[in-house]
Amino acid sequence: MIHTNGVATVSAPEDLRTEVRAPVGVALSKVYRVRAEIDTMLDELRPGDRVPAERELAGRFGVARETVRHALRDLAVEGRIRRQGRGTVLARPKVVRPLAPESAGEEAAGVVRRLLSWEDGIADAEVARDLDLPPRTPIMTLERLLFADGDPIALERIDLSLDRFGWLRAAFDPLGSLATTIGDSGVEYAGATERIETVLAAPREAGLLRCRPAVPLFRVVRRGIDTQGRPIERVAALYRGDRVAFEVRTGGRGR
Amino acid sequence: MIHTNGVATVSAPEDLRTEVRAPVGVALSKVYRVRAEIDTMLDELRPGDRVPAERELAGRFGVARETVRHALRDLAVEGRIRRQGRGTVLARPKVVRPLAPESAGEEAAGVVRRLLSWEDGIADAEVARDLDLPPRTPIMTLERLLFADGDPIALERIDLSLDRFGWLRAAFDPLGSLATTIGDSGVEYAGATERIETVLAAPREAGLLRCRPAVPLFRVVRRGIDTQGRPIERVAALYRGDRVAFEVRTGGRGR
Repeated sequence: MIHTNGVATVSAPEDLRTEVRAPVGVALSKVYRVRAEIDTMLDELRPGDRVPAERELAGRFGVARETVRHALRDLAVEGRIRRQGRGTVLARPKVVRPLAPESAGEEAAGVVRRLLSWEDGIADAEVARDLDLPPRTPIMTLERLLFADGDPIALERIDLSLDRFGWLRAAFDPLGSLATTIGDSGVEYAGATERIETVLAAPREAGLLRCRPAVPLFRVVRRGIDTQGRPIERVAALYRGDRVAFEVRTGGRGR
Repeated sequence: MIHTNGVATVSAPEDLRTEVRAPVGVALSKVYRVRAEIDTMLDELRPGDRVPAERELAGRFGVARETVRHALRDLAVEGRIRRQGRGTVLARPKVVRPLAPESAGEEAAGVVRRLLSWEDGIADAEVARDLDLPPRTPIMTLERLLFADGDPIALERIDLSLDRFGWLRAAFDPLGSLATTIGDSGVEYAGATERIETVLAAPREAGLLRCRPAVPLFRVVRRGIDTQGRPIERVAALYRGDRVAFEVRTGGRGR
């Protein structure tokens, strides 16, 4: 441990110091420096305020327009800014969603669902495993788009056993809460398992979510479990990483 | 609702059908089709098995090598395959991490920590807010790298009040559990709030995590709270999206 002017530093092991100096292109470092400078500049703006033009930023930071363009693209992927018309504006703060997504208060946050499709089919290997069903069991699949402030933020695909939940076709308002409708039928939810990954949007998904295919998405796969430990439904949802953050609270007194 | 051969379909609203046909480049659709075909082909392989060469895949799918290269790049970003020497192999399954990260069982999963730095400093506005401290309060900042199977999977930065936790310098083994050391001192954890976002790696982070700057990362900011509701520590961790998935269990009987 080295003490210098009251600063205690434990140095990185030798092989890690080498990593810090790993070959990263000069151009990329410049993009990152410019991105950090623009990021600081954005602190002065409010959502919807116009971001200065590429040409102006290039002049201000003394770099090529191409460098500014890369920096702005990264800031857009992260959801800090967004294109609007021919210009760029400061984005709204991310929509914060609780885990589990089907929890109370979600509708209060202004999330609206729209049904895309509702089809019968056959469980593939992954869906069969997650639902504890024999391979090739008949299932129902619902697809819904979730909107916040009029923007699509998520695409969810819900798989259910047709044998067990075929009655939902008559009973379920697809704009409502699936968990509530199933719960009202006497099936008791005991918990859920959720798995969160990052993926890149496929073209159809990017089209539905109105984002560029390069935007990273959260993929959240949730399995609801009843009191006998039997899976109820499998929900595989894709959330736009530039518009959504998740929040988890553990323990009794977190605030 | 349209019934065709026993398939019930609810059509998308008109404006959404337009979205499905949103202008997405033909080349991109071809990349996605090839990616899906390679993905299916990969099901036959085991982790570490060699993926056929670009030239061979281009011939098999009847597309340009450039198309195959794009598809392989996307599969690498998603963590399905990885470069090894001059070739490409099937990647290992993702490391699955529970939320909260500091929970029991983590070390059992083979996660090893390495200290990068331990410095005194001054809380910036964000850290001060998260720790409920006045702006510019003295803090300690620890940086650690987390490894699984010898690969760096996360970079975590821990901020603590210097006044309250300065004693950790003498007492804490930085390879051990911070929560355990703090808990042993009589501070009682009551819960935590975690916020999860997607970001792109900055050059230094990409160097430390040995990933390309284009790989999406999870950014997880966790605030541990004591029984009086006071924040204990703020941990801002970056996890490689190509190597890590998170799992959350809610309710008592999830499995």
